[in-house]
Amino acid sequence: MSVNAFIASHKDRFLNELLDLLRIPSVSADPKFKEDVFRAADFVKNSLERAGVDRAEICPTAGYPIVYGEKVIDPSAPTVLVYGHYDVQPADPYELWDSPPFDPVIKQTEEHPEGAIFARGSADDKGQFYMHVKAFEAMLASGELACNVKFMIEGEEEVGSENLDLFVQQNKEKLRADVVLISDTSMISMDTPSVTVGLRGLAYMQVEVTGPNRDLHSGTYGGAVANPINILCKMIASLHDDENRITIPGFYDRVETYSETYRDQLNKAPFDEDDYKRKLAIAEVWGEKGYTTIERVGIRPTLDVNGIWGGYTGEGAKTVLPSKAYAKISMRLVPNQDHKEIASLFEDHLKAIAPASVKVKVVPHHGGQAAVVPTDSVGYHAAEAAIQEAFGKQAIPTREGGSIPITSLFQQALGLDPILMGFGLDTDAIHSPNEHYGVKNYFMGIETIALFFQHFARLHPKG
Amino acid sequence: MSVNAFIASHKDRFLNELLDLLRIPSVSADPKFKEDVFRAADFVKNSLERAGVDRAEICPTAGYPIVYGEKVIDPSAPTVLVYGHYDVQPADPYELWDSPPFDPVIKQTEEHPEGAIFARGSADDKGQFYMHVKAFEAMLASGELACNVKFMIEGEEEVGSENLDLFVQQNKEKLRADVVLISDTSMISMDTPSVTVGLRGLAYMQVEVTGPNRDLHSGTYGGAVANPINILCKMIASLHDDENRITIPGFYDRVETYSETYRDQLNKAPFDEDDYKRKLAIAEVWGEKGYTTIERVGIRPTLDVNGIWGGYTGEGAKTVLPSKAYAKISMRLVPNQDHKEIASLFEDHLKAIAPASVKVKVVPHHGGQAAVVPTDSVGYHAAEAAIQEAFGKQAIPTREGGSIPITSLFQQALGLDPILMGFGLDTDAIHSPNEHYGVKNYFMGIETIALFFQHFARLHPKG
Repeated sequence: MSVNAFIASHKDRFLNELLDLLRIPSVSADPKFKEDVFRAADFVKNSLERAGVDRAEICPTAGYPIVYGEKVIDPSAPTVLVYGHYDVQPADPYELWDSPPFDPVIKQTEEHPEGAIFARGSADDKGQFYMHVKAFEAMLASGELACNVKFMIEGEEEVGSENLDLFVQQNKEKLRADVVLISDTSMISMDTPSVTVGLRGLAYMQVEVTGPNRDLHSGTYGGAVANPINILCKMIASLHDDENRITIPGFYDRVETYSETYRDQLNKAPFDEDDYKRKLAIAEVWGEKGYTTIERVGIRPTLDVNGIWGGYTGEGAKTVLPSKAYAKISMRLVPNQDHKEIASLFEDHLKAIAPASVKVKVVPHHGGQAAVVPTDSVGYHAAEAAIQEAFGKQAIPTREGGSIPITSLFQQALGLDPILMGFGLDTDAIHSPNEHYGVKNYFMGIETIALFFQHFARLHPKG
Repeated sequence: MSVNAFIASHKDRFLNELLDLLRIPSVSADPKFKEDVFRAADFVKNSLERAGVDRAEICPTAGYPIVYGEKVIDPSAPTVLVYGHYDVQPADPYELWDSPPFDPVIKQTEEHPEGAIFARGSADDKGQFYMHVKAFEAMLASGELACNVKFMIEGEEEVGSENLDLFVQQNKEKLRADVVLISDTSMISMDTPSVTVGLRGLAYMQVEVTGPNRDLHSGTYGGAVANPINILCKMIASLHDDENRITIPGFYDRVETYSETYRDQLNKAPFDEDDYKRKLAIAEVWGEKGYTTIERVGIRPTLDVNGIWGGYTGEGAKTVLPSKAYAKISMRLVPNQDHKEIASLFEDHLKAIAPASVKVKVVPHHGGQAAVVPTDSVGYHAAEAAIQEAFGKQAIPTREGGSIPITSLFQQALGLDPILMGFGLDTDAIHSPNEHYGVKNYFMGIETIALFFQHFARLHPKG
């Protein structure tokens, strides 16, 4: 039986196993889901064992464990290291989900006429890393596994992969491989497959502004005491100038300027602004003056408020001048910007612009470096060939706005450029209510991954 | 037995009755306390009956009922109409209370060495209106009630007294009186008694900014799609200029300019800025350039954000570019500014400054007109005389920053200038966690109210 025949004859089980995994609310950011995160790690270990690895283990860290599994078919064959994560983003706000986030359902959508799985983590990243487990099972069962394989599936990607660095440093020999393969990104569309070759870095900060030492009556004190919400808004507003450039001193110092040729090439990727606006129901796009939408998310750094709160937020009215106001602010960074340096510039700037009437506290949440992946490697060529064979189209190299801090870790610690071959779509609502992942994308992904292994074995220079 | 002897011999009961009332969480802003608000109305009716009114009734409205009670001792005697409210502000955030908000406890504080009652509503306004019920009981029991009395205690003051207007218009005859007496304000201190002669108006608005039609991943879309939180912050920041003047066109058109003489007189009220800053733990006061703190809260209009929320506000980090952001914004108004006109100017301005990349919705919550009370009335003189006798000091007329929309309603509908004789302190933390009311203030208030009745009967021209 061929790989594809094996996949076809186990479709229901391949799908149902993923649904079971999606039922575990493994939210790493929220301590109340701690047991569930550990439960998800067990699930991953068991699934690797059932798929046929030689051994699987749960490797404890200071936080959530890393699940490792490997199958060595031939020490002289090339080795593929698969990275993924079993943790998911928080599902809040729950009330905006059309179905419960941890009770997966399959529904049709405009982008997914053959159905999509609606659940937190369906696209990011459970549905995507699980394709590798199933592709591995199919290759092994059909006797077509052409590479050794190592799985490293972590549980802290959504909170900054804090313990992965140490694990990778301490297990360089164990993790030795010829390529790292990651499916945690999106492609342009099913008609326009793409491979991600650039990712932005991230510096995520929390800001706390304190005015008076207690909540005050806004009638008695309003207009005479600085209101920390008003001040926080003023500070946030000042972080962009009239051309939507970020005003933090030094922020752009290490940002690369690209040639017109490079930018022209980048802008050749298919992009329909009207369709983009229609799907988001916005009247206008927005961003840094002088750049296209593709450039704004691909090669330019940005700053977004991810959350803000303070004062009375319940029903009705309360005339309070609150003691405190808070914001979560993140910056997407481009290659050469160092997330620790940016975090420090951010903190210094916020303290510098705060008026004397308030106190400001800045806490960095987590960060990661930006990454660029070369397109002339054996791994990239294997991905191109696999996509060509599966989709019948040439893959387009794209730069994506998101961040996978692990990417630069692999480059530095293991000397490997990861291949970012993701099968999600930008419309899959990852990190949002109603996250979903196409059923067709799931199975096309499994097929394409199996093809990647074949082509990688074929293209890899014999050791 | 004299009034004061009666009060002295019933101190424990007078205090315990108030504590029972404070145990009812009559939060009018939050529908989940609906039954409690009605229960508080029953409590008030029963307490009036026990105190000795001829009749008490619960008058239904489209919202929460108004409790009415009266005692006519002599149709030719002057009549005092007492106004108060049995509803309270929401108690959120609960975690900032040192003791549960609806489980009153008595503790010493710097301002209240003889103890203060800590509970939501202790000062605003349960503790203050209940002084009138007890003063009435004491006067009646000791045979010293010199005026007829009418009580009108409502349950919607904290949500804008929406149904009071109609009730007053429909019951002008029933409410006919010679003066309205209200204890719902504060005085400077126990050593410096004062009477409030000015109150600011209020326009309370809710703003909703919508960007994309769903929450987005801030990596994939950040920098290319307008973030409604960033935009809301920018809009809020622009509502004050560099001199902290409000930038809404037309906002100051009807604001009165005062003479230097008047302002000098106003600034003669005792005010210790160092002490003010120390008690609030702020390094600097803040406000409109060219005005003192007393002027900023007394004669100038202001704009404060009372609440803001949007995006992810839980533990940890979520890289979301949210679909919506919200703010509750209120403006304190001065005489001649019409709260409806200001609400409309606010809405027009917010829509005008919103960029095309977002949609803005503005909903007015509630409002009220500012009021100024003359100091040459019989009522004012009676208050002065009562305070002189009780405190041994001349009362200082003050303008307070808060709003009691009912004040201007009485002026317009009943032709009566209310006497705003409150016994709270600015430090009582009304509308805040740990609201409290001095035990001494409570009993001094009861005595002073009884003296007001005596002096009002003495000074009032015989009908």
